[in-house]
Amino acid sequence: MPRSDRILMGPGPCNPYPEAIEAFGRPMLGHLDPEFLALLDDVCDRLRSLFGTTNALTVPISGTGSAGMETCIVNVLGPGDVAVIGVNGVFGQRMCDVASRTGAEVVRVDFEWGTPVTAERLLNAHPSPTLIGMVHAETSTGARSDVAEIGAGKGDALLLVDCVTSLGGLEFRADDWGVDLAYSGTQKCLGVPPGLSPITVSDRARDRFVAKSQSWYLDLRLIGDYVGTPGAKRAYHHTAPISMIFSLHGGLTAIADEGVDAVIERHATCGTAVQDGLVGLGFELFAQEGHRLPQLTTVRVPSGVDEAAIRSDLLGTYGIEIGGGLGEYAGKVWRVGCMGHTARERNVTTLVAALGELMAR
Amino acid sequence: MPRSDRILMGPGPCNPYPEAIEAFGRPMLGHLDPEFLALLDDVCDRLRSLFGTTNALTVPISGTGSAGMETCIVNVLGPGDVAVIGVNGVFGQRMCDVASRTGAEVVRVDFEWGTPVTAERLLNAHPSPTLIGMVHAETSTGARSDVAEIGAGKGDALLLVDCVTSLGGLEFRADDWGVDLAYSGTQKCLGVPPGLSPITVSDRARDRFVAKSQSWYLDLRLIGDYVGTPGAKRAYHHTAPISMIFSLHGGLTAIADEGVDAVIERHATCGTAVQDGLVGLGFELFAQEGHRLPQLTTVRVPSGVDEAAIRSDLLGTYGIEIGGGLGEYAGKVWRVGCMGHTARERNVTTLVAALGELMAR
Repeated sequence: MPRSDRILMGPGPCNPYPEAIEAFGRPMLGHLDPEFLALLDDVCDRLRSLFGTTNALTVPISGTGSAGMETCIVNVLGPGDVAVIGVNGVFGQRMCDVASRTGAEVVRVDFEWGTPVTAERLLNAHPSPTLIGMVHAETSTGARSDVAEIGAGKGDALLLVDCVTSLGGLEFRADDWGVDLAYSGTQKCLGVPPGLSPITVSDRARDRFVAKSQSWYLDLRLIGDYVGTPGAKRAYHHTAPISMIFSLHGGLTAIADEGVDAVIERHATCGTAVQDGLVGLGFELFAQEGHRLPQLTTVRVPSGVDEAAIRSDLLGTYGIEIGGGLGEYAGKVWRVGCMGHTARERNVTTLVAALGELMAR
Repeated sequence: MPRSDRILMGPGPCNPYPEAIEAFGRPMLGHLDPEFLALLDDVCDRLRSLFGTTNALTVPISGTGSAGMETCIVNVLGPGDVAVIGVNGVFGQRMCDVASRTGAEVVRVDFEWGTPVTAERLLNAHPSPTLIGMVHAETSTGARSDVAEIGAGKGDALLLVDCVTSLGGLEFRADDWGVDLAYSGTQKCLGVPPGLSPITVSDRARDRFVAKSQSWYLDLRLIGDYVGTPGAKRAYHHTAPISMIFSLHGGLTAIADEGVDAVIERHATCGTAVQDGLVGLGFELFAQEGHRLPQLTTVRVPSGVDEAAIRSDLLGTYGIEIGGGLGEYAGKVWRVGCMGHTARERNVTTLVAALGELMAR
C-alpha cells in the first residue's frame, strides 16, 4: 500500500509532533504497571495546566473527541433534566443529539453559522436549566465564542464547553471562566494523532452526577476509580489505550518544552498568515470578523469553482489536505486547519502557493 | 521517566508484534483520505477472515473491548427487551451491567467460575429472549465455553458473543456458529496495543437495531455510513483513530503472513507449556479440565503465599507481568496470559524459571 506523506490542513487530524509519534515506540506496559500509572498521572497534570484547572477529574477518555462529548453529557443528564444548547454549527447540533438521547429536554438556541453564540440569548433560554452547553471553537465554521460571560451568568446550571478545536490553540481557563465540564480531542491543536479525548470535570459537576450513567464505558464514577482522582483506588475499569496515552504524553511534552504561550502564539501567527494568504487569492472569509479562529479558517468557495476537484488536486498533486464544508455548507465552504505540528509558516506558504496555482488554471 | 521493557504475561495487553508498532510510524492521513479508506477496508476484510464471517458490518470500534461490548448491546436492546446472559466470570457480569443500563430486562444465568456456560441452562432461561449473551473465553477465569450449540438452539433470539480474549487465539466461526454480534479487543491474541474493538454484526442483527441507540458515539447506523458496509457513503461520523488503525493493520498483516492456523497453533503450544510448567512448580490449575484456554491460564495461589509480593518481585526483578484475580478471586488466583507476540516458548521458559526461583525463596 502507498504511504503518502500529507500536509494535513483540514479540520483535523493535523500532522502530529515528532515527539508524539516517537512515543509510540516506548515498550508496552500493562495498564496497572506502576510506571504506566506514573506516566498517566503526568499526562493528567499536563492536561490540567492546558485546561486552566485544578479539577481532580481531568483525564483522557478512551475514545475520540465525540466520546468526550458523550461522556460529559451522559454523566450529568437524564430524564427530567433540561439542557440549553447553543448551536452555531455542526458540533452544537451534535451536542443536542447526544443530550436528547439521555431523555433530557433539549432547548436548542440557534445562531447564524459563522457567528458566535451569545450570552444573552443562551442565558435567557430557560429559567432553570440543568446544563448549558456551547462550543468554544466551532470546527464546522471557524467561529470562536466567548465562554467567560456565559460562565459568569450560568447561575445554578452546569456549564459544558466543547474545546475540541481550541485546547492548545487558544487560551482556555476552565476555572476562571466557570466551566464545569469540558472535552477536547488530541488531533487538533495538541498535535497528537486522533484517539483520545481529554476532559475536565469540576467537583461541582461531580456532585451532580446521575445515579447511574446510561453508559458503562463512559461512566465517570468508574473511570474516576481508576484514574484522575488523587488517591484513586486504581480499580480496573477498562484496559487503557496505552500507546495512545504514550503518544499524548509525547505531544504534551513537546508543547511544554516549547511553552504553552509560545504554542498559542504560533497558532495565532500561522492563522493570520492563512487568512491573509487566502484573502490575497481573492477568497472571502466566512466566519464573522473578530470571532475568527486562527487554527481553523473557513472561506466561501467562489461560484463556478468545482470545489471537490480542487481539493482532490490539492491532495493528489501537492499532498495537501483541506476540508470541505459540513451540513448545509457542504460544497460551499472550505475549512483550512493550521494546528499542532502543521502550524508552521512553511506549510502556510506551501498551501497558498499551491492553491494559487490551482485557482489560476 | 524510566522505560522498562516488560514481558507482558498478564491478561492483556500482551507484547505487540513489531509490525504493529512499526505501523505507528506511517505518515498520518486524514480520516477521509482515499488511502486511509483503502487501508481501513483492508482491515475490515482481514477482520472478517478472523471472525469467520461475511458480515458487511465488520469494523474496528474506536474504543477498547468494553466499548465493543457496549456497542453490540446498545444497538439492539432497549426497554421491553429481554437479555439472557450467561455469567461465569467478570465479563459476563459486565455484560449484565451494560445491558441493564439500556432499560432491558436482564435474565442472569450464573455458572460456577472456572466452568463453561452450558447451552441447556442458557437456552431454557426464558421463552423468548431478544438476545442471548455469553463469553467465549472468560478472561477472569481462563475458561472456554462452546458457542456452536448455543447458536444452533438460539431460536428467534440474537446471539451475542464476547471474543475479546479468543479472537486470533482460538478458532472462531461466527457464521457457522450462528453468532449475530461479536466483539473483541486488539491487545490480546491479535498482538496489537489496546485501543480498538473489532466487532462483527450479522444482517439479521442489523434488521433489529433499535430505532435510535442511546449512544451517539457507538450508533452503528451512523458508523455503518462511514465504514464497513460496501458502498458506504463515507459520511463523517467521528474522526477515526488513524494511528491505532495503522497499528491494527500491521498486526493483522503479521498474523496473515504467519497464517491464522499457525498463529492459533502457536497459542495452543505455548498455553500447554505454561500449564505444564506451572503444574510442574506445584500449582493447581483453576479452570475446568477440557475447557482451559491456552492463551490465559489461571492457577490457585497456595495459602500462605503473599501473592501481591510475588507479582511485584516478578515485575521488578524479572520484568514479567502476570495478573491477579478479579472479583471474588482477587488474591486467590493468578492469571497468566500468553497471547499475541508474547506467545513464544522463550517467554514461557523465562516465566517458569523466574517463578520457580521466587517460590523457592
